[in-house]
Amino acid sequence: MKKYYFDHVATNPLDPEVLDAMMPYFKEEFGNPLSVYEYGMNAKNAIEGAREKVAGLINSKPAEIIFTANGAEANNFALRGIALARQNEGKHILVSRMEHHSILNSARFLEKSGFTVTYLPVDRNGFVDPAVVKKSIIKETTLISVTHASSEVGTIEPIKEIVKIAKERNVIVHTDAVATTGNIPVDVQDLGVDLLSMAAHQFYGPKGAGALFVKQGMRIVPLIYGGIQESGRRAGTENVPAIVGMGKAAELAKASLSQRMEYLRPLRDRIIDTMAGVEKVVLTGDRNNRLPGHASFCVEFIEGEAMLLLLAAKGIYSASGSACSSKALKASPVLLAMGIPSGLAQGSIVFSLGKGNTGEDIDNLLTEFPAVIKRLREISPFAQGWGEGDGGDACTVKK
Amino acid sequence: MKKYYFDHVATNPLDPEVLDAMMPYFKEEFGNPLSVYEYGMNAKNAIEGAREKVAGLINSKPAEIIFTANGAEANNFALRGIALARQNEGKHILVSRMEHHSILNSARFLEKSGFTVTYLPVDRNGFVDPAVVKKSIIKETTLISVTHASSEVGTIEPIKEIVKIAKERNVIVHTDAVATTGNIPVDVQDLGVDLLSMAAHQFYGPKGAGALFVKQGMRIVPLIYGGIQESGRRAGTENVPAIVGMGKAAELAKASLSQRMEYLRPLRDRIIDTMAGVEKVVLTGDRNNRLPGHASFCVEFIEGEAMLLLLAAKGIYSASGSACSSKALKASPVLLAMGIPSGLAQGSIVFSLGKGNTGEDIDNLLTEFPAVIKRLREISPFAQGWGEGDGGDACTVKK
Repeated sequence: MKKYYFDHVATNPLDPEVLDAMMPYFKEEFGNPLSVYEYGMNAKNAIEGAREKVAGLINSKPAEIIFTANGAEANNFALRGIALARQNEGKHILVSRMEHHSILNSARFLEKSGFTVTYLPVDRNGFVDPAVVKKSIIKETTLISVTHASSEVGTIEPIKEIVKIAKERNVIVHTDAVATTGNIPVDVQDLGVDLLSMAAHQFYGPKGAGALFVKQGMRIVPLIYGGIQESGRRAGTENVPAIVGMGKAAELAKASLSQRMEYLRPLRDRIIDTMAGVEKVVLTGDRNNRLPGHASFCVEFIEGEAMLLLLAAKGIYSASGSACSSKALKASPVLLAMGIPSGLAQGSIVFSLGKGNTGEDIDNLLTEFPAVIKRLREISPFAQGWGEGDGGDACTVKK
Repeated sequence: MKKYYFDHVATNPLDPEVLDAMMPYFKEEFGNPLSVYEYGMNAKNAIEGAREKVAGLINSKPAEIIFTANGAEANNFALRGIALARQNEGKHILVSRMEHHSILNSARFLEKSGFTVTYLPVDRNGFVDPAVVKKSIIKETTLISVTHASSEVGTIEPIKEIVKIAKERNVIVHTDAVATTGNIPVDVQDLGVDLLSMAAHQFYGPKGAGALFVKQGMRIVPLIYGGIQESGRRAGTENVPAIVGMGKAAELAKASLSQRMEYLRPLRDRIIDTMAGVEKVVLTGDRNNRLPGHASFCVEFIEGEAMLLLLAAKGIYSASGSACSSKALKASPVLLAMGIPSGLAQGSIVFSLGKGNTGEDIDNLLTEFPAVIKRLREISPFAQGWGEGDGGDACTVKK
C-alpha cells in the first residue's frame, strides 16, 4: 500500500544528502572532539563547521549556538537556565498557553522551585496579544517564552512585537522555534530574541541533534553539567554524526527555503479550502499567518484518534494534537486555551506537509478524509440529529 | 601512517554490525515513536527491543532503563533527580573524589541549591574506603554516588561493600558505570545499586545514546521535562537510530565480554610490566583491580600534553587525564585526590585498549613510549640532576 506521510510536525524523513554527510563520523572519523590527536581534531572541526551552518540558517554568530540532544532539552535549558541565572533580579516569568509541554512542564518545575509563572492567554486563532504581554510584565519579570509557531495549530506568533515590548522593560525573550526553523525564515537579528530553540529532525536532519541560540554575552545556567564541551554550557560527549547532520540539514534548508514554502502553501490551501466545504469542520489556528505546510482542524462529533486510525488504514499518516500528546489521549491544552470547547477539541486532526508530498497525495487525502468523516459520523451517537441545530454552532471555519 | 588507537576511554569506534542495525532508522523507519501509525509503532518497537537488550547487559528489567543522550546526562539526572525527589527526607549527599566532572559539577550545583555534599576521600590506589562511607553517613544523607571505575586510573571501586553499608542506613546508591558497562561484568542485582549510568559509545555503540538504570519503584525528578517519552521521566523526541544502536551494542558486548576481557588483560599487563622497568614512571590506580584494557601512568618531569603530542606524531593516540579535561590543561582532580603531587600529576598519561588492538600495536607502543620519555627528559629543565636523588622519591611503581 502506498503511504501518504502528512505528519512532518512529528518528525521528518532524513534527507539522504544529510545521511551521506554523517556517514564518515560513524566510520573512520569516530574521535572524541576533546581529544588532542587527529581523530579528535577532525571531530572538533566537524562540529565547528556544523555550528557555522546552523548559525547561517538563523543569522546568528557560530559562538551563539549551543548544541543539545533535541528541542525539548533546548527548551528546558532556556527556561530554567535563564530563570536561575537571573533569579537575583526577579523570580517571575511569562509563558504563553500555546507552548509545547517542554516549556509548560519546565515552567511548572520552576513554580515548584519558588518562581511565579504567568500563563499568557491566546485568542481564538492562537495569537498571543502583545498588549497582554505588556500588562503582564511586572518588576520581577526576567523572562518571556512564546513559541514562534505552534506545531498543533500552525499559527505564527508576533514575536517581533513581543520582543519590542519586552526590551522596553529589560526582559529577556526566548522563542521555541522548533516548528519554524528551516521551514519559514527564522532570523534572530530580525526577530530580536535573546534565545531560540530548534531541532534538526524538523528540517530533514537527524533525530538526536537540537540547538539553543543564546545571544552573545547572555549568562545562562547549564542544564547538564560536566566537561568543557560547548564552552562549558552543555556537557556530555558530543553526538558528532548528528551534529554534522544538523549542519548539513541547515545548509540545505537555507538554500531551499523559499522554494519549499512556495511549493507547500498551495497544497496546504487546497486542503483548507476543500475542507471548508465539509459541514462542521473547523480550521484551527489562523487562516493566513500559519506554517506553510500546516492544515489543522477540529471535526465535530468525532474523536481524533478514530480519524487517525481509519486514515492510517488507508496509508494516510497524520496526527491529533501534538506529537507528544498523541498517546496521552487528552484534549489538547493548546486548543482549550484557544477557547475551543473540549468536546470539539477531542476531534482534532493535523496534516503537516513536507517536500515529498505531491498534488496527487493531496487529491487522495481530499477523497479519503471526507469519506472517513462521513463514515465515523454515521456511527457516532453524538452526531445524531445535529442537522436539526443542536450542536457545533460554537465554531465556524475561519477563512 | 598506521594509527594506533589507545584511547578507548575517550570513545570507541562504532561496531559495523551496530551501524548496520541503525541504518533502517535513518531511512525508511524514520517515524516518531509517539505516532500511532505504522512508522511510529515500528520506531516504538525498536526502542523497546533496545531497552530489553540494554537491560539484558546489566541484568535489570527493561522498564528500569531510561534512555538519555549520553553518560553525562544520566549522571546529572541521577544525582539531581534523586536529591530533589528525596529532599524532604534530607539534603545531604555523598560523592567520591574519584567522580567524573558530570557528577562533581552536579554536586556543586546542588550545593548552590541548598544541599550539603561530603566528598569522600580515596586512597593512593584510588579506592573509596567503605568504612569512611559508613562514618560519613548522617541522618540527612539520602544518596551516595561512587563511580564503578574511574576512566582516568582504571581502579574498580568496591560498590557491593558500599551498597551494603548504605542499605543499613536506607541511603540510595548510584554508580557511574560509564567506563565499565560492556567492558567488565555489570550486574545491578549483584551490585545492589539503585541507579547506574552508562553510555553506548563506551562499548562500541553510537554517540548520542546513554541510559540510566533506575530501580523499579524509585521516584526520580526528571532532568528534561516535556512529553510522555520514557514514561514521562525523560522528554524529547527519542534518538531512535542511536537507541537501536545502543541495544545492538549491548547485545554484542554481552556475548563477547569474557573473551574481550581475556584478550585485553595480557596486553594491558605487558604495558604495565614493561613500564615498571622505566625509571620514575608511576602506575596510577590499582595494579590488579582495574579495567582490563587500562594502563595509566604518571611520568616524572614531563608534561602529559608533550607526551601525547609526540606519541601522536608517531600515530599513537592516547589521553592525559580524563577525556573531558584533556583540553582543560589542569592537573587532574582525581590524581590529586589520590595524593599524587601536582607536579607528578601533570605527567599523566592513559593508554586504554580495545578489541582492535593487537600484540604488534603493543610492541610498537613499548618501543616508542620509552623513547618519547627519554627524548622529553633530555630537554626538560626539571629532569636535570634527578639521578642524584632530588626528585620523584614520593612514588614507586606498584606491582
